[in-house]
Amino acid sequence: MSVQTVLLDFSVEAGRAEDEPGQKALLSGVEPLLRKHLPGLSAAARVQMPHAGGALLLLLADRGASVSVRVFPQGLITVNIEYYKADGDKPLLDFESARALEAVLRKQLNCSKGQAYPPIKRTLFGRYFPSADERLLEYDIDSVIHESTSPFQKIQIVHSKSLGNMLVLDELQNIAEADLIYTETLMQRGKENFEGAEIIILGGGDGALLYELLKEKPKFVWMLEIDEDVMTACNKYMKSICGDVLERRKCDEYEIVVDDCMVTLNKFLSQGKKVDYVFGDLTDVPISDTPSGEIWDFIMLILETSFKVLKPSGKFMTHANGASCPEALKMYEQQLMKLDPPVEFVKSSAFIPSFLEDWIFYQISFKTEKNGTA
Amino acid sequence: MSVQTVLLDFSVEAGRAEDEPGQKALLSGVEPLLRKHLPGLSAAARVQMPHAGGALLLLLADRGASVSVRVFPQGLITVNIEYYKADGDKPLLDFESARALEAVLRKQLNCSKGQAYPPIKRTLFGRYFPSADERLLEYDIDSVIHESTSPFQKIQIVHSKSLGNMLVLDELQNIAEADLIYTETLMQRGKENFEGAEIIILGGGDGALLYELLKEKPKFVWMLEIDEDVMTACNKYMKSICGDVLERRKCDEYEIVVDDCMVTLNKFLSQGKKVDYVFGDLTDVPISDTPSGEIWDFIMLILETSFKVLKPSGKFMTHANGASCPEALKMYEQQLMKLDPPVEFVKSSAFIPSFLEDWIFYQISFKTEKNGTA
Repeated sequence: MSVQTVLLDFSVEAGRAEDEPGQKALLSGVEPLLRKHLPGLSAAARVQMPHAGGALLLLLADRGASVSVRVFPQGLITVNIEYYKADGDKPLLDFESARALEAVLRKQLNCSKGQAYPPIKRTLFGRYFPSADERLLEYDIDSVIHESTSPFQKIQIVHSKSLGNMLVLDELQNIAEADLIYTETLMQRGKENFEGAEIIILGGGDGALLYELLKEKPKFVWMLEIDEDVMTACNKYMKSICGDVLERRKCDEYEIVVDDCMVTLNKFLSQGKKVDYVFGDLTDVPISDTPSGEIWDFIMLILETSFKVLKPSGKFMTHANGASCPEALKMYEQQLMKLDPPVEFVKSSAFIPSFLEDWIFYQISFKTEKNGTA
Repeated sequence: MSVQTVLLDFSVEAGRAEDEPGQKALLSGVEPLLRKHLPGLSAAARVQMPHAGGALLLLLADRGASVSVRVFPQGLITVNIEYYKADGDKPLLDFESARALEAVLRKQLNCSKGQAYPPIKRTLFGRYFPSADERLLEYDIDSVIHESTSPFQKIQIVHSKSLGNMLVLDELQNIAEADLIYTETLMQRGKENFEGAEIIILGGGDGALLYELLKEKPKFVWMLEIDEDVMTACNKYMKSICGDVLERRKCDEYEIVVDDCMVTLNKFLSQGKKVDYVFGDLTDVPISDTPSGEIWDFIMLILETSFKVLKPSGKFMTHANGASCPEALKMYEQQLMKLDPPVEFVKSSAFIPSFLEDWIFYQISFKTEKNGTA
């Protein structure tokens, strides 16, 4: 079941829409054209908007459809058609019909431009997710496999026709079965040598990074994940990306510590224990106006502490954010430049299937003096 | 300038929304919560919908915002907030605020679920395109480079931050500067040997296929494109994918015939001229209930005629449709099986950046008898 919202846009010369008579004339022109496509159409309310908002016509039609038509004085006309569609019901207006209706309206109203959108299916099970730069992306989700709320976040596993099962945390796409490239770019497979290495993973509750790292024969991996429920869900429904690594909490090759990662980092610190790699598989680099606030403080604390438990040759490896957010990435790099002792970094990017965009990853190490003068 | 439409969805137990008093109670609950986020909010109309459509509340707010709240008897509540935003204006509700408003409404109304969408920016310059399976995808388009209408179609070249310039035909994404993989999969670079080959391209007005094929040293290429205007636009704004091949209509290596491709195909046919490859770079395989109608007739005519001008070892190479449309692909394959003489095919797929999805390509050849009994 879903509510379907069909959106159509038009533009006319601003002169035709700038005053009340013009707005009324346009609304009067739209109504009979809509009636041909929407049986039972009748006007329910006509509102002259305050604040130079133009005019709005509210109509009702068969099948419980409501239609709002707004004429904006700047020359834009929007049509929103909304109705309830039960599973199996034929749509009142599918994308093809919406395009046809758009073409008729555009022609008859003598609009300079028009656009029809694929109908929005408001199903409340997460078909729509944002890109890093907050674009709206509709996914081919056909079912919700799992849904729970942990003390830390809302956890969903949904099924996408093209991506397989996908982990969704607090309404944001996190990792899908199709995302091996995410893990391989994060770990720089083929470029880094993990054989015999000691490694800490901060976060990583989906198990994919641990699973892939273990294939590279490290000496030992500590995975520090706070959310037991994420691991339980992934162990059940994301086996193709995490294998059986989430089945046990401790073995000869790794230990999963279910706690705030700072607890173990501080323990390592007090013991003077150092490792070869720390992976930051926690929150994305935030998108904010200034590098301040709780999340940035957390990111800096994690970075500072991680470099204290890294060997001089060690590396901090992390994902950051979408390539579409250069400001956020620049802010992160500026923060990196504030670390003491100083660090240097290399960036990699990869198109991540479940993000539908390029994602940036950092490999950060202690700064080395150039020209052999170290 | 754009109209911004902010959508929020909620669900409550159906019992709370099934009758008029329940619907009214929910609407009355929403109104004061919205008022905190939308200054100047006041009710303009309240409608009890016919056809068991539930109830609708239309509100107006500052900045010319209109807000419609619908309670559907099935337990869904939709909120649509719409206003005009001039370039440079601060949004009334950005995605973060919309998410915050959603969280407040969900909690206060005791909803089982809620969802906020990234605001829809109705700019009328093509930020939104459909996937093959008609999902709504918002692109990072920041400008329109070219716009014209030819006798055959509406032609736009828009600029995407991540994809470079992108050709849009009749409101559908066609090819972008980032799409070398499209052309390479269509031509099966590295798998097919075009050296010394005679090749016909049907369509291909963007010039990318011709440009890439010429790098493989074919004997001669005939490109049969009906729309001069597409070539003019691509020659100007898509140079990185077509080089200078669209600069001239005829040279030692190729000829571009600006006409219905059937004219040249029929000429070849009457002359008994045969070639090694025919590329179908025309329309997508249609998505329809039955393989009938004008487009299917055209596709079959093209296929039949192409195989008449192909050498016995020749191949017909074409793109088809999204991997998300298996029914359309199956229908196409069933049509292929009807061809006489019989053909066989191989499929390839590739993720096409500007389509944001996997696309299917066919390589079709005359059927060969197995076991050497030919």
